Amino acid sequence: MSQFLSHKARRIVPYVPGEQPKAERLIKLNTNENPYPPSPRVREAMAAQVDKLRLYPEIDGETLRAAIARREGVQMDQVFVGNGSDEVLSLCFPAFFDPDCPVRFPEITYTFYKVYAELFDIPFVTTPMQEGLRVDVEGLLSGEGPVILANPNAPTSLALPLEEIERMAARQLDKGKVLVVDEAYIAFGDQPSAVTLIQRYPNLLVTRTMSKDHSLAGLRVGYAIAQRPLIEGLIRVKDSFNSYPLDRLAIAGATAAIEDEAYFALRLQQVKQTRDWFYEALIQRGFVSPRSSANFVFAKHATVPGKLIFDQLRARAILVRRFDKPQIEDYLRITIGTQEQMEEVLRALDEILAQAR
Amino acid sequence: MSQFLSHKARRIVPYVPGEQPKAERLIKLNTNENPYPPSPRVREAMAAQVDKLRLYPEIDGETLRAAIARREGVQMDQVFVGNGSDEVLSLCFPAFFDPDCPVRFPEITYTFYKVYAELFDIPFVTTPMQEGLRVDVEGLLSGEGPVILANPNAPTSLALPLEEIERMAARQLDKGKVLVVDEAYIAFGDQPSAVTLIQRYPNLLVTRTMSKDHSLAGLRVGYAIAQRPLIEGLIRVKDSFNSYPLDRLAIAGATAAIEDEAYFALRLQQVKQTRDWFYEALIQRGFVSPRSSANFVFAKHATVPGKLIFDQLRARAILVRRFDKPQIEDYLRITIGTQEQMEEVLRALDEILAQAR
Repeated sequence: MSQFLSHKARRIVPYVPGEQPKAERLIKLNTNENPYPPSPRVREAMAAQVDKLRLYPEIDGETLRAAIARREGVQMDQVFVGNGSDEVLSLCFPAFFDPDCPVRFPEITYTFYKVYAELFDIPFVTTPMQEGLRVDVEGLLSGEGPVILANPNAPTSLALPLEEIERMAARQLDKGKVLVVDEAYIAFGDQPSAVTLIQRYPNLLVTRTMSKDHSLAGLRVGYAIAQRPLIEGLIRVKDSFNSYPLDRLAIAGATAAIEDEAYFALRLQQVKQTRDWFYEALIQRGFVSPRSSANFVFAKHATVPGKLIFDQLRARAILVRRFDKPQIEDYLRITIGTQEQMEEVLRALDEILAQAR
Repeated sequence: MSQFLSHKARRIVPYVPGEQPKAERLIKLNTNENPYPPSPRVREAMAAQVDKLRLYPEIDGETLRAAIARREGVQMDQVFVGNGSDEVLSLCFPAFFDPDCPVRFPEITYTFYKVYAELFDIPFVTTPMQEGLRVDVEGLLSGEGPVILANPNAPTSLALPLEEIERMAARQLDKGKVLVVDEAYIAFGDQPSAVTLIQRYPNLLVTRTMSKDHSLAGLRVGYAIAQRPLIEGLIRVKDSFNSYPLDRLAIAGATAAIEDEAYFALRLQQVKQTRDWFYEALIQRGFVSPRSSANFVFAKHATVPGKLIFDQLRARAILVRRFDKPQIEDYLRITIGTQEQMEEVLRALDEILAQAR
C-alpha cells in the first residue's frame, strides 16, 4: 500500500457492501432494496428543486426534519437527518463514544459497526450469539460502556420486543451511557419502535433509513430520533465533518415520501405478505429460518450447503447475499422482492435442491 | 452540554457556514454560490434516475468518475467523488495524516481544515500570513509533515502560480509527505490547475467542488484527482464511513454538468467579467482588495469599518460575509452575483460611504 497513506488508512478493513452489478436482467435480492418504486409524489417534489440547485440546501434539512417529527410524533429538534443511516450511525461513534470505554454490540450484526469503531478509534467488545442466533442482552449490558444494537438485527432478521429495549435503555441510563438502536428494518416487523421510549430515556437514540421501507436506497437519506441534547451532539459532529450532507433533491424527495403515509402503508403490506408466504414456502422445502421481522429472510437448508445454493442461484441470474463467516456460512440472506420474483426464486430453489439430492 | 456526549463532541468547535436565510428577496452574496443556473442538461439527466430510486446508487460513482476523467485528461481510477469537496477534504485527514505528525496550513484559510483536524485527532500548525495576506510558502514547507492549501486561497481570493505549487509538491515529495491542494475556486482564475502535475507527483492530491463553478451547491458534489494509490486511500476511508455518499440524482446531474463544457465556459466568462468590472468599481470607491482569482472579492475600505458596511448592506437586504478575526475583521467577502445584482451592491455602497463620511 502507498507510503503516503496514514497508518490508519493502511490498517482499517473497510465495509464491503453487497455488490451492485450493472446487468439489468438479474433478480437482485442481495442488498435489501424494496421491489416497489417510491411514492409518486417524490418525482414532483424533486422537480421543483432543480431550478434552485445553484443554491446550497438547508444546513440541517429543516423541511425534512419537520416532516419526520410530525410523522413520528416528536419535536423537530429531536430529529437529525443524514446521508443514509450509514452516515448517521457513523457520526454516532465520535458523538457518543470515547476511546477509553469500549462500545458493545453483538458478534453477528451489521458489520459496519466494527468499521466505524476502527475509523474513530473507539474500542469495542462483541458478545457471542445465543441459541438460534439470538442477541445476548445480558452480555451487552454487562459492560461499563455504550451499546449499539440493530433491532431487528441484520442479517438474522430477529427482533427484540420493545420491553427488552426499554430494559436496556434503563440499565444503560443507570450507568450514564448511551444506547443506540438501529431500526433500519423496524417498519417490516410487528413490534412498536423504540421512538416511543425516547421521551423517558435521555440516553436513547434511534436511527432509521429511508432506503428500505420508503424505497429510496438511491437517494441516501437516514435519520435519528432522540432527546435534543443527543441530537445536538450529532449536529456538532456533522458540522465538523460536512455541513450539508443532504442535497436539495434528497431533502425534497424524502419529505414527500414521508408525507405519503397511505402509499407507504400499502407497499409495506405487500412486502410483508410476500415475505410471510415465501417464508412458509422455504420451511416446506427443508429450510431453517427465524421468523423474519425485516424485508429479508435469513435461511439455511437442513442438508444442502449455503455456498452451493448461492452459486446455483447466481448461475440462474438470482443474486442473494451470503456471509462467509463462522456460524452463518450456510445461511442466505434473501431480500423480499415482488411476488413474481419470489416465485421465480422458489422455482430455482426446487431445481437446485432436486439436483443436490 | 449533555453528559451523554463524548469528550470529543463536547470539545470540538464546529465549522460555521455562511447563513442560508429563507427570505427570497435578499441579494445573497455570502456563500459564493453561482448566480446562474446549472446546465439545462442537468434536469433531464436527473429525471431519468427517478424511476431507479429504489435501487442503491453506484458505490464509487463510476459514471461521474469517468466523465471527470475525460474532462480532466486523467484515468478514471485517478478520480474520487464525494458529497461536496467538504466531505472529500474531510476524508483526506484520516486517509493521509497521522496523529504523530502535524499538518500545516495558512493561518487565514478555509476554517474547516482546523475543524477536520480536531475531529480526526490530527495535530496542526498554522503559518502566519505574509504582507498583503499572502501565503507563506516557506513556512508551510518548513515542517516535517503534510500540507493542505487552498489555491486560490479563501477568503483572500489570492492564487499561487503553478510553479509555486510544483515547488511545494517536489519539496513534500522529498520528505515523503502529501500535499493536498483545494482548488474550489480554480476555474475562476487564470492559472492552470495543479491537476496537470499529478502524473509527476505521487504525493499530490487536488480537490474540486462543483458547487461554485458548475452552479451545483444544492447537489453536494466534489471530487479529488491524484495518482491511484492516493485515490485508493480515500476510497478505503470512505468505505469505512459511508459507502454511498452520492445519490443517483447527484451522480447523474453532476455528470451532465461536467459534460456540458460549452455552457460551463459561457457562465464562467460571465462571472469573471462581472468580477473584474466590480473590482475596478470598488477600487474607485476607496476599497483595498487583492486581485481576485475566485468568484468573490475580498475587500476592505480605506477608512470605513467593515462591520459598519456589513450591517448597512444587510439593512438593505444585501448579505455578504465577514469574519470577525484579527487581520481581516475589516474585510468583506463579496460573492460575484449577476451584473444587475452587483450594480445594486454598488448603489448601496455609494449610499453607505456617503453617510459614513
